[in-house]
Amino acid sequence: MGKVKFDVSVSLDGYSAGPNPRFEEPLGDGGERLHEWMLETAGFKEAHGGGEGGATGPDDDIVREAFENTGAYLMGRQMFGGGEGDWDESWKGWWGDDPPFHAPVFVLTHHPREPLPMDGGTTFHFVTEGMQSALEQARAAAGDKDVQIAGGANVVQQYLKAGAVDEFQVHVAPVCLGGGVALFESLGNDEVKLEVVRVVESPLVTHLKYRVVK
Amino acid sequence: MGKVKFDVSVSLDGYSAGPNPRFEEPLGDGGERLHEWMLETAGFKEAHGGGEGGATGPDDDIVREAFENTGAYLMGRQMFGGGEGDWDESWKGWWGDDPPFHAPVFVLTHHPREPLPMDGGTTFHFVTEGMQSALEQARAAAGDKDVQIAGGANVVQQYLKAGAVDEFQVHVAPVCLGGGVALFESLGNDEVKLEVVRVVESPLVTHLKYRVVK
Repeated sequence: MGKVKFDVSVSLDGYSAGPNPRFEEPLGDGGERLHEWMLETAGFKEAHGGGEGGATGPDDDIVREAFENTGAYLMGRQMFGGGEGDWDESWKGWWGDDPPFHAPVFVLTHHPREPLPMDGGTTFHFVTEGMQSALEQARAAAGDKDVQIAGGANVVQQYLKAGAVDEFQVHVAPVCLGGGVALFESLGNDEVKLEVVRVVESPLVTHLKYRVVK
Repeated sequence: MGKVKFDVSVSLDGYSAGPNPRFEEPLGDGGERLHEWMLETAGFKEAHGGGEGGATGPDDDIVREAFENTGAYLMGRQMFGGGEGDWDESWKGWWGDDPPFHAPVFVLTHHPREPLPMDGGTTFHFVTEGMQSALEQARAAAGDKDVQIAGGANVVQQYLKAGAVDEFQVHVAPVCLGGGVALFESLGNDEVKLEVVRVVESPLVTHLKYRVVK
């Protein structure tokens, strides 16, 4: 069985999105700066159907590794498509016609909806039976590969607190956002025991990988 | 002329001290866990008059480097001795008779006081003329060596905002404190431009060094 993991870009001051996240700017003010390290990598461009010519190197290796080992994704309804989850059935989320997941994606929501197949192998499944059920469905879909908790921060925190996460990476961008969504906000003192597993550096970001000690 | 720098241990969720810092526990609840990586190093033990037998390796190299290149320290009154700064003249701070600095230490305060020489080469100088004056005095005392802003977080933030800091290290411990003193709390979005200079990993902590782009 694969691992349950997450991969989140954060600012040096600990935010996974900037202040004032909103429909037009889901990453909040300045939040796009957290992801600059990723946008030019060949692996990211390929996943987004962006053709040839991206950058190779350590950042690209990290992106490829994450995509290749992941068999299914979990995400909150906000990350699928914003709003309160009572989308019109015509709303296909904000990931475009060919989302970068190329795998089943399980969306936590209170609003039942038929599965939504997209181009390129991504199918969004809408799960109304809660976190545990969503995780079980994602594990079954992932087979031997990993389940990636795509976000947002509140979903990541809930699975961490539930003891469901095996390992995770934070990609620390050399920026301060001064506010926004704190990735680990609701985690209490000493609630999760961690070990450093790997550190990869590049000029644009530092990739820190941790194992959750159970 | 040397650099102006700081070196602060932080939790993965961005705190340089835990919740509820107080006189008996200046690092707050769980805050001592941020410094565990340092306590067993040979360099730290030597600086604290702790004799022989400490650990060598990357963490020790980092500690030694910081001590060796520093010619003077700056700190807030809280870090010297807690309280409101109107100490009885007999109060010599909480660093013991032989503080680990072994160099001049400039303490920002509103209460004038004669310099306080300690064992081992540390002298505390109490500066009432403000941040800029304290920095100038520390620079003069440091000569060709660096000035280290020892803390606390509010002092670090003020010097960062004033554009006075050349580089800094954060030592990221694999713990979450769930609250406390956020090292970069008052830094606004994009207020400071940073470049990653160096990453050193060890099992206990990750040492991230940044340069402030001016």
